Amino acid sequence: MSRNRRIVITQMPDGPLSQHCFARSDADMPVPTDGQLLVRNLILSIDAANRAWMQGLTYRSALAEGTVMAGLALSEVIESRAEGFVPGDLIFADTGWQDYAAIDAAVAVRQPRTEPLSHLISAYGTSPLTAYFGLVEIAQLRAGETLLVSAAAGSVGNAVGQMARAMGARVIGVAGGTAKCRWLIDELGFDAAIDYKNEDLRDALKRTAPSGIDVYFDNVGGEILDRALFAMNEFGRVVCCGAISSYDGNKPVHGPRGVPGLVVTRRLTLRGLLVDDFADRFDEARGRIGDWVACGALRIVEDMIEGLDNAPAALIGQLAGQNRGKRMVRVA
Amino acid sequence: MSRNRRIVITQMPDGPLSQHCFARSDADMPVPTDGQLLVRNLILSIDAANRAWMQGLTYRSALAEGTVMAGLALSEVIESRAEGFVPGDLIFADTGWQDYAAIDAAVAVRQPRTEPLSHLISAYGTSPLTAYFGLVEIAQLRAGETLLVSAAAGSVGNAVGQMARAMGARVIGVAGGTAKCRWLIDELGFDAAIDYKNEDLRDALKRTAPSGIDVYFDNVGGEILDRALFAMNEFGRVVCCGAISSYDGNKPVHGPRGVPGLVVTRRLTLRGLLVDDFADRFDEARGRIGDWVACGALRIVEDMIEGLDNAPAALIGQLAGQNRGKRMVRVA
Repeated sequence: MSRNRRIVITQMPDGPLSQHCFARSDADMPVPTDGQLLVRNLILSIDAANRAWMQGLTYRSALAEGTVMAGLALSEVIESRAEGFVPGDLIFADTGWQDYAAIDAAVAVRQPRTEPLSHLISAYGTSPLTAYFGLVEIAQLRAGETLLVSAAAGSVGNAVGQMARAMGARVIGVAGGTAKCRWLIDELGFDAAIDYKNEDLRDALKRTAPSGIDVYFDNVGGEILDRALFAMNEFGRVVCCGAISSYDGNKPVHGPRGVPGLVVTRRLTLRGLLVDDFADRFDEARGRIGDWVACGALRIVEDMIEGLDNAPAALIGQLAGQNRGKRMVRVA
Repeated sequence: MSRNRRIVITQMPDGPLSQHCFARSDADMPVPTDGQLLVRNLILSIDAANRAWMQGLTYRSALAEGTVMAGLALSEVIESRAEGFVPGDLIFADTGWQDYAAIDAAVAVRQPRTEPLSHLISAYGTSPLTAYFGLVEIAQLRAGETLLVSAAAGSVGNAVGQMARAMGARVIGVAGGTAKCRWLIDELGFDAAIDYKNEDLRDALKRTAPSGIDVYFDNVGGEILDRALFAMNEFGRVVCCGAISSYDGNKPVHGPRGVPGLVVTRRLTLRGLLVDDFADRFDEARGRIGDWVACGALRIVEDMIEGLDNAPAALIGQLAGQNRGKRMVRVA
């Protein structure tokens, strides 16, 4: 019987995440108990949130040293000891960075068979759903408004920008480096882009949003959030979707200067978004996303890394802003 | 013809507001032009926002040295050069700290004659309206929830706490000093109080809100906002109504550490409130406020200072937290 390749956490990061935090530690194949499924991972979803889980203090319980690194994956059922699942079924769950996992059937979310399979993560997975509910529900974006999105080349950010364009908004993306910025404009149809690594944010916001920002879709927190608040129009909305800038380190970060002063005077709304709160509306969202994909308004951008052993490097690189679009790791 | 007593701004405060910023500088009676009213101030409304106006960067244009200090007042029309107003009419407007003002009729808000007149400011004025729309509209407070309010002995804060109790919430007030805290509990019916001058905020929040806070009505910003965010429950709402802690000084203040991290993980909403946005619903609110007053659920707390010359001291004292309830200055 084959062994189970696993990436375990050897030590919690004390500062930026590094390879030293992980090691291969193979084990015997897990054995499912009653109510469980034995699944084989096909594609891992690499998410900045994985790093946040290592800090505790999120919507998920914190991770521990010596355990398999947690992470969402698209998997195939190998053996079912639960009603309603049979071998060959595709599921999505937090199975961790390994070949095989025995998981409770209750946490497995069944997936349809599509081609390519990666679209289940990149096009219909968490990132575009997050973009969708952030725009429609949290921001209540209206046609004609100006939207700013940070980490704009990332998996959520690129979808936010493209969907907002499809909804009739003017879209400005913040990304690191001129190449990414050009790509946002030339390939994804953004109206403008700000290179936060090479531009003064205040000047760049004046240049790209002379009439101010109505919606800021914030994936990073930190200095960009701080500056963006000063550029917000009255009754502007900030979708608080992540704080990548503070994930990869332990320093306590102070919040943006505009809170609460600018929030009061400009009647801003800041609201946090976790996409699972909208789980009962995922089908509605996927329908609309599918329409956008079909008509060419939404281009699915995949950043596929090959091989389980590259999962740590994939996450470390994502935190450093290497990815364009949805980063994944093909395991099998 | 009588002279017009005026309190003018002699210098902008560079740090905490002091008497040196103001001086009496009387002038001739103002003369109204077409479309204007000559009004005589009866009662000034002293508001922390008056101080914020001296810093610029609010919803109102900044004040200037050499001009009469701005401020809202209940006034009586002496002479009308505008249609729809006659001598004897009561109005509410930003007439400034003086006996008489010539103001555009368009900015005068007509008031009914009630007894006592001060209730037009204390019971039906901006503070209780702010409390009402903050609770009903911004926070959408529900019975059974736990509400925290800062500056709880102040004009907005005491109304917030009493109204929230009337709406079925459990209410915790933050105020400075044991006497104020006792007063909140014994006289106004608050469930608990935190003395921010003598208690560790983190411990006090654990003590008074062991199950967390659903709504935080923030009048102060600063450290209390910072700490309150850590005590918020999932889907909690923060009504951003003011930032007294940062009004009386010029230092740039950093925002709360929980923004955006806790906002995301707990799906909090922070939303700014300016009561004038709800002007078309003031009558609805006053009806409900009147009912609460009539049935004893809302006690109107007035802090009346006598004499125009005491207006600077009244504002300076309010910024230092001296007042209980709605501070006003009787001019005539």
